[in-house]
Amino acid sequence: MTAPKRNVYLKTIPIPEAVEIARAALDRERLVRSVTVPANEAADRVLSEAVFARFSSPTVHSAAMDGYAVTAQATFGAREGSPKVLRKGTDCFAVNTGHPLPEGCDAVIMIENVTESGPDAIATEAPAFPWQHVRRIGEDIVATELLFPRNHRISPYDIGALLSAGLWDVPVWEPVRVAVIPTGDEVLDFTTRPTPGAGQVVESNSQVLAALARRLGCTVTRTPPVADNPEALRQAVQDALESEAHIAIICAGSSAGTKDYTRDTIAAFGEVLVHGIAAMPGKPSLLGVCRGKLVAGAPGYPVSAVVCFEELLAPLICWLGRTETPRRQPVQVELTRKVPSKLGMEEFLRLAVGKVGDKYVATPLARGAGCITTLSRAQALARIPAQAEGLEQHTAVAAELMVSEEAVRNVLVCVGSHDNTLDVLADELMGLDSPVRLTSSHVGSMGGILAIKNGSCHFAGAHLFDPECDDYNFPFLAKYLPEQLAKNEVTLVNLAIRHQGFIVPKGNPRGIRSIQDLADGTVRFLNRQRGAGTRILLDYHLKQAGIAFDAVNGYDKEEFTHMAVAVNVLTGAADTGLGIRAAARALELDFVPLARERYDLIIPNRFMETPGVQAVLKLLRSPTFRARIEAMGGYETTLTGQIMQAGYGLKGKES
Amino acid sequence: MTAPKRNVYLKTIPIPEAVEIARAALDRERLVRSVTVPANEAADRVLSEAVFARFSSPTVHSAAMDGYAVTAQATFGAREGSPKVLRKGTDCFAVNTGHPLPEGCDAVIMIENVTESGPDAIATEAPAFPWQHVRRIGEDIVATELLFPRNHRISPYDIGALLSAGLWDVPVWEPVRVAVIPTGDEVLDFTTRPTPGAGQVVESNSQVLAALARRLGCTVTRTPPVADNPEALRQAVQDALESEAHIAIICAGSSAGTKDYTRDTIAAFGEVLVHGIAAMPGKPSLLGVCRGKLVAGAPGYPVSAVVCFEELLAPLICWLGRTETPRRQPVQVELTRKVPSKLGMEEFLRLAVGKVGDKYVATPLARGAGCITTLSRAQALARIPAQAEGLEQHTAVAAELMVSEEAVRNVLVCVGSHDNTLDVLADELMGLDSPVRLTSSHVGSMGGILAIKNGSCHFAGAHLFDPECDDYNFPFLAKYLPEQLAKNEVTLVNLAIRHQGFIVPKGNPRGIRSIQDLADGTVRFLNRQRGAGTRILLDYHLKQAGIAFDAVNGYDKEEFTHMAVAVNVLTGAADTGLGIRAAARALELDFVPLARERYDLIIPNRFMETPGVQAVLKLLRSPTFRARIEAMGGYETTLTGQIMQAGYGLKGKES
Repeated sequence: MTAPKRNVYLKTIPIPEAVEIARAALDRERLVRSVTVPANEAADRVLSEAVFARFSSPTVHSAAMDGYAVTAQATFGAREGSPKVLRKGTDCFAVNTGHPLPEGCDAVIMIENVTESGPDAIATEAPAFPWQHVRRIGEDIVATELLFPRNHRISPYDIGALLSAGLWDVPVWEPVRVAVIPTGDEVLDFTTRPTPGAGQVVESNSQVLAALARRLGCTVTRTPPVADNPEALRQAVQDALESEAHIAIICAGSSAGTKDYTRDTIAAFGEVLVHGIAAMPGKPSLLGVCRGKLVAGAPGYPVSAVVCFEELLAPLICWLGRTETPRRQPVQVELTRKVPSKLGMEEFLRLAVGKVGDKYVATPLARGAGCITTLSRAQALARIPAQAEGLEQHTAVAAELMVSEEAVRNVLVCVGSHDNTLDVLADELMGLDSPVRLTSSHVGSMGGILAIKNGSCHFAGAHLFDPECDDYNFPFLAKYLPEQLAKNEVTLVNLAIRHQGFIVPKGNPRGIRSIQDLADGTVRFLNRQRGAGTRILLDYHLKQAGIAFDAVNGYDKEEFTHMAVAVNVLTGAADTGLGIRAAARALELDFVPLARERYDLIIPNRFMETPGVQAVLKLLRSPTFRARIEAMGGYETTLTGQIMQAGYGLKGKES
Repeated sequence: MTAPKRNVYLKTIPIPEAVEIARAALDRERLVRSVTVPANEAADRVLSEAVFARFSSPTVHSAAMDGYAVTAQATFGAREGSPKVLRKGTDCFAVNTGHPLPEGCDAVIMIENVTESGPDAIATEAPAFPWQHVRRIGEDIVATELLFPRNHRISPYDIGALLSAGLWDVPVWEPVRVAVIPTGDEVLDFTTRPTPGAGQVVESNSQVLAALARRLGCTVTRTPPVADNPEALRQAVQDALESEAHIAIICAGSSAGTKDYTRDTIAAFGEVLVHGIAAMPGKPSLLGVCRGKLVAGAPGYPVSAVVCFEELLAPLICWLGRTETPRRQPVQVELTRKVPSKLGMEEFLRLAVGKVGDKYVATPLARGAGCITTLSRAQALARIPAQAEGLEQHTAVAAELMVSEEAVRNVLVCVGSHDNTLDVLADELMGLDSPVRLTSSHVGSMGGILAIKNGSCHFAGAHLFDPECDDYNFPFLAKYLPEQLAKNEVTLVNLAIRHQGFIVPKGNPRGIRSIQDLADGTVRFLNRQRGAGTRILLDYHLKQAGIAFDAVNGYDKEEFTHMAVAVNVLTGAADTGLGIRAAARALELDFVPLARERYDLIIPNRFMETPGVQAVLKLLRSPTFRARIEAMGGYETTLTGQIMQAGYGLKGKES
């Protein structure tokens, strides 16, 4: 190719423009050809030419019912009490469904509507109208007529029409073939069953993109990971260009760093068309054309790679394959919090969505491009337009459903404190005959109470201890939800009593015994976020012990879940943190108990009778669920499933 | 099985009840087992157990950007004009994206935001905040935590999460395996490339059901057609029961006729649970359980078979496979005509739907269960409830979209007279870079004018001749749409001038030469329906010739399209009928010209600028389109694409 090389990186362009540039540079007619497939294997394929019926269906006038074929006129005048008698073999002819109508007949009388009149005749007490119970020639399909136009996507039903019309084979566009090339020195192929060391990752983007492409009907090949080495990449791209693939996708290396060779490799074989799109995640996406084929560079972060695929490549694949680009169902959602955004960049925001009351409530998930689980956990996606500086809290926002509306209606939204038993609850809920999906956002107990106040969850998990009245959660509801509490609008149901304490490495090398061990600042502590019940618990114990917050080394380092705290301890990033025993146990860490506490679910009464909440209550009261959480260690289930009253405190006994 | 045999046929039951009976009779846990598949092949599969992360992601705190890892605190106080200098190797460490953070560091400064300060140091003019540009341990995935609950359907994104979490293989439910058994003496297997004789049909239901089942993720096997013979059927069912299939579907033979052996065969192997559902089409559906497997009898008519599959079997397959039953998007449509319905039976009505102006306009398609093309042509389905006696015209009706909303918005609705060039137009429209789907309902020219009046189409096709003013269409618009015409609200664009005449068998055996040949009643004529321009043309010529309508043999036998008339002539069902030359030519019949006439498209001006109508106008004026319709014979394109004025008549010359 001798086309000029344009340097367009950092001059990011809007997505539609990028797609249009690539379309204009590709010769679709030359790239994707027509092939012939048997009609019965043609579902979801797209016709490359119009097809015309060879046979009519039915091929002749035929009986639509079991009965007698007649000439309608011969039955005129028949009525109740005054039957017409028809002689078999001359006036009427026995037929079964599907039989051709004998010459001269134009109607069928159902077997149920005649009586025998002697051995050779029948009688009918109602006239037949012309063409009654007759399938007429060509009623379904007329020979020679257009059955389907070109570029029609064949449905399972259409297979019936094709075969009935005598079309045994049909011309269709070949599937779009995609070659995926993962790259990177740091990536490990999962088939080697690796254990990633520091700085290594299991290669997964190529597998995600391959699965997305297959869902669009593509045939996908994937090479093993290619090293960060210009020559190795050049060879891999050349192999792809010489293969049957219509599209090559190079995973990672699409940015402008020192080890990013994708751009130069594309330029070496052809032309770089687009480098950089005005979107986040997905900005360092690359599109080029080499030897008539599309070559793309997908960014290395998983969410960026998905955006690159879904926004740039999917429309191009569908255009090449003459199919409709799949679109997600639009939906209006209400954001649980404000989301600022960068001007000039379109941002794709993943949302956890549930139907709470009559509105779709959406909690923005982590925005980092590195978090693939945000795509797994999202029920919807919002696009923050390039010209917006963000989205406001509690306003209606346009989003696109990533799952069915049915599935969203089935989501139970839990917001509040994190607890491992919520995972067990989530699993048990999905095991029900009518499965319920639990999404839990971990924003701390106070965040949960706020969510209840805002009507943005079905229930909240909280374990807020008030030493003044030696009670849990009620004192905080009295303070933050006084009206709802006074009007009896919420119910508290205990999830479990749990043990909080210091999560420490196996063998407790720092020898932590009590809160006093944090006083001298030598222990590297990891805190929980503001509003977390665990942090309130810590603060209470520090005050009791007379330790200043800023004397604690790491008081200002925050994590959002017990497990995150435990992982930091496991990897040595911190010496200890306060958390639940289950988190320590899960990672085989040691645990120094500090306190027992009550973890309750705060449920607005208006949701108490919904199927989802009812399912939760039923599970909490089941022996299976209790057994599972007791097996985790650090929990007591004596109160589990019980409705709590103010002032109850911790009267439940240890089991 | 020794369970009692219940005779429930003719005691038809509602669909949900039938599904529930079958669910209750099946032991899902025993029938469908768990298997293990590689994570990268698990898209769309359903987890049989909860899966928990083995690795955290990231496994350690790591750089999210290329730059320098620092201790945030060391940068505090840096500001423009007053930089902090950091020594490489002690205060800061060069890192690339993905590198683990060196011990003690908690932030990364982007390479773009530092300046070299001598060979061994960098300077920054802004403080780094803690955890800036750092991906923290477990930010995406925390080891040991629940990744996905049981019965979660794995998305392409989830594959990324699974691999990142170190899950190389996952436990999933095996695909539901379906054995499809076509039956019938009259059915021909398409693989033999047959030409069906009278009373024979190409077997297609089994292929349609197989494609529908595959779309639900099933593994499908299909046997060749089984003869109508109890022993052969028994053997086929036994083979299916002894195979790996979870479900056997017997196609046809599910009714109560003399050759319907399905019921007895199921009873011989197990228990008939349901025979007859309160739905049309689909009534003679059968459900049974044999040796723990589901055995179904699908009715023989194709639409009935599809209803049986989609309404009874799909929910059971999804329940067995632990997936959500796919639901179609609900939509409100306005019916173009009244539809009576039988009380006590739920009816499934296929609808051709387009968005005309701001409403979805739905034309009910043929209701016969034998017409598979009604499913191919439908964009939506309406359910007429059992307790309703029908649906009213011009009222909003709840329907379900069978295609995407996008696709419906892209449908161009043409109502009116039938002409073969509309097929060519439909094909050319689908060949455009932005394809447009044309649906045409053949209700005659007068029906088209009525549709314009009711706002239920984008344009109408008409060829109505008024001998009094020797003009086409305008006189009828003046009569039926006086206001629209006076207000200049419609535009007439010529499609073609075409030739009408007598369609006669090859060689014209009855020697038909003119309209006079219909006068003595010996020629078996086939008429077009009331309101068809062709019928008006016939009536005009009969009157001119002084022939009484009832003198014509077959004047009361009606067909709805030219092609249907031609097919009747081809098969000998009629000696002749009036129609266009293209229809005669398509079936290699002869043609006796009677008249030339103008066929116009009547287009409301409000649609003139829509992309669909603009695409039509552009095509009409293209040489390609004209060449195609001229090649059909019997058309002149001298006026094609021109806007017509009142009084123009047929001034276009023959080409």
